[in-house]
Amino acid sequence: MRVPPSGTPTVPGAGTLLRILRDGRPRTRSELAAVTGLARSTVAQRVDALLASGLIGPAGEAASTGGRPPTTFAFMPSARVVLAADLGATYARLALTDMAGYVLAETRADLDIATGPETVLDWVITHGRKLLEQVGRSPGELLGVGIGLPGPVEHSTGRAVNPPIMPGWDGFDVPGYVEARFFGPVLVDNDVNIMALGEHFARWGDASHLMFVKVATGIGCGIISDGGVYRGAKGAAGDLGHIQVPHGTGHPCRCGNTGCLEAVASGSAIAAELAEQGIAARTALDVVELARSGSVPALRSLRQSGRDIGEVLAASVNMLNPSIIVIGGSLALAGDHLLAGVREVIYQRSLPLATEDLRIVSAQMGERAGVIGAAVMVIEYGLSPERVEVLVSGG
Amino acid sequence: MRVPPSGTPTVPGAGTLLRILRDGRPRTRSELAAVTGLARSTVAQRVDALLASGLIGPAGEAASTGGRPPTTFAFMPSARVVLAADLGATYARLALTDMAGYVLAETRADLDIATGPETVLDWVITHGRKLLEQVGRSPGELLGVGIGLPGPVEHSTGRAVNPPIMPGWDGFDVPGYVEARFFGPVLVDNDVNIMALGEHFARWGDASHLMFVKVATGIGCGIISDGGVYRGAKGAAGDLGHIQVPHGTGHPCRCGNTGCLEAVASGSAIAAELAEQGIAARTALDVVELARSGSVPALRSLRQSGRDIGEVLAASVNMLNPSIIVIGGSLALAGDHLLAGVREVIYQRSLPLATEDLRIVSAQMGERAGVIGAAVMVIEYGLSPERVEVLVSGG
Repeated sequence: MRVPPSGTPTVPGAGTLLRILRDGRPRTRSELAAVTGLARSTVAQRVDALLASGLIGPAGEAASTGGRPPTTFAFMPSARVVLAADLGATYARLALTDMAGYVLAETRADLDIATGPETVLDWVITHGRKLLEQVGRSPGELLGVGIGLPGPVEHSTGRAVNPPIMPGWDGFDVPGYVEARFFGPVLVDNDVNIMALGEHFARWGDASHLMFVKVATGIGCGIISDGGVYRGAKGAAGDLGHIQVPHGTGHPCRCGNTGCLEAVASGSAIAAELAEQGIAARTALDVVELARSGSVPALRSLRQSGRDIGEVLAASVNMLNPSIIVIGGSLALAGDHLLAGVREVIYQRSLPLATEDLRIVSAQMGERAGVIGAAVMVIEYGLSPERVEVLVSGG
Repeated sequence: MRVPPSGTPTVPGAGTLLRILRDGRPRTRSELAAVTGLARSTVAQRVDALLASGLIGPAGEAASTGGRPPTTFAFMPSARVVLAADLGATYARLALTDMAGYVLAETRADLDIATGPETVLDWVITHGRKLLEQVGRSPGELLGVGIGLPGPVEHSTGRAVNPPIMPGWDGFDVPGYVEARFFGPVLVDNDVNIMALGEHFARWGDASHLMFVKVATGIGCGIISDGGVYRGAKGAAGDLGHIQVPHGTGHPCRCGNTGCLEAVASGSAIAAELAEQGIAARTALDVVELARSGSVPALRSLRQSGRDIGEVLAASVNMLNPSIIVIGGSLALAGDHLLAGVREVIYQRSLPLATEDLRIVSAQMGERAGVIGAAVMVIEYGLSPERVEVLVSGG
């Protein structure tokens, strides 16, 4: 991968021109020269390179000011495609999108992540090829491959790090495996970060600071700040599930501590609590079904889970001052009881300035959030100025 | 203020050239053309504009490759000066720095912020002029003025917002007042954000994600992410003091809630607690003096305060994954008892991945952190590419 030497500003080459055109508005060479301050000849050369790569195309003629009317050029989102995979604990979703995040084809399967990286990634590759065939595209037309995993991921290397529910994946070179057998670049992130990206891209693009909370078997959080994932120093940011809840003492957590939010308020914690009361519940989905069928203990537990999550989120609202909190994951599908609990505590506990314009909403993208986010991750990387220079030079 | 239309990339004009030269290394016109990809003629034109403004100067000759040896150019940090003010509840500090943050002259006074904005800002202006005279510079040579205030500030407008200890300041147009009587641009932020900037700039520049915690009469936090202040949606990020402490119930806080960290662990909370035990203590500074004289109840209270702060920070560490936490403010001056309490709880409570490389340290800049940070705020703004274009065009 060719990148400019660190510390130097981006050369305003083809990539910067493309960034301007990504808003979808066609422009003439003169307009591009005016907006960049570059010489007409430089712009012409870079427009030619982008035309040759197919990333832009002619988009009709502008009004003439005398003489031959000038041609306008526009971004062509269908020039390349993106393969996006959302791999959960027990399912896999795969989508092929264009460079505007529009889904061209998709598929889904029950697939246990614990069958290990080769089995799961081979499924991604096999069905990736099938989706490409289905829409008549070739692997060479891929901008890249995005993969979400249900565990901690070192984003810079694409490797899972001590993932609790993914035997065989620890340290496995996911990008290397897929690039050797299929196509690259391959970007990997954890499921919550890509869901946060997907929800933000598809529904809440106006929010400068978003927190996406996934409440399912476990509890996690993805933070979007100024359009990108906030990762922190080691990529560990957003670990909401293992923050201590004040009254959580005594609940042992799978992380080794006690009283973690996940040990008190997750789908599995609620199921265990209901089972203790003699109600048949083993999983997060059992809780959702009980809630849907009107089980009062389940509804009460969901509400309390929301309050516990709100308790922990209230502190994060004071620290991070988000503009929107999006509650997703399977437990959010069980009606508004969880959301109501979250709202109740946050509006009571957080500072007026931090909650003044704060929206707390349910996720809107359902099961598609992950694949859309995985695609967005690839698009933002693949269309960054540095990568576009690689694309137009045939890299 | 001239800014490029939103959504367009920065024109690589004089500002981008200067950004390259800010590393201090002299470069020839050819080297600048090579690193930017710009035409030699364009570089020559922009170098001339920067030379005329004084922001860069000739820095000797490069080795010749035959013919006349080419001139190199370097950033001239002394071309402009910065006036930086750190206004506390009962004191004011003022410094004049160059554009590398080096202090050229400084002064300090006991000044009550409650005497109101005109009195306090007139002091800044009067003594700002004196400092300029002292080093033989004129107001016209200022890059700008930076001001830190001991209360919440709307950074975009420079106005204080409902500041609890600053009667008469609410909504007061600080930049307007100073620009009309002295010089601009004037940037304003709260004291904790500028202290965070100052500590980061002067001592911890290698840390990508820093949290600065000020423990004094109150408790606040400034967050530095990728070199800049993390503000959140409404600029309210970092409000650590009003997060609830698990065992804090019953302690009323000045914010109207009960159990806030500030109501339990701040200097005034500790002083009140010691006073209840019959020990003569009214202020945070009394607590510091008691601790220095070896008072066991004071040391015990400081340690417990550290634990309480650690309790709240542990959650923030999981969410934000900082690389360093810097503990400052007057209570941090009372030895390592506070710091020890903070460390004890964070290393026990936070996740291994988040604490693996986490450093928890005492602030190093003492009372100077604020003025250095206020200067850095002005330098980063004033030398941004957009502002440099204003400077070189004589704006």
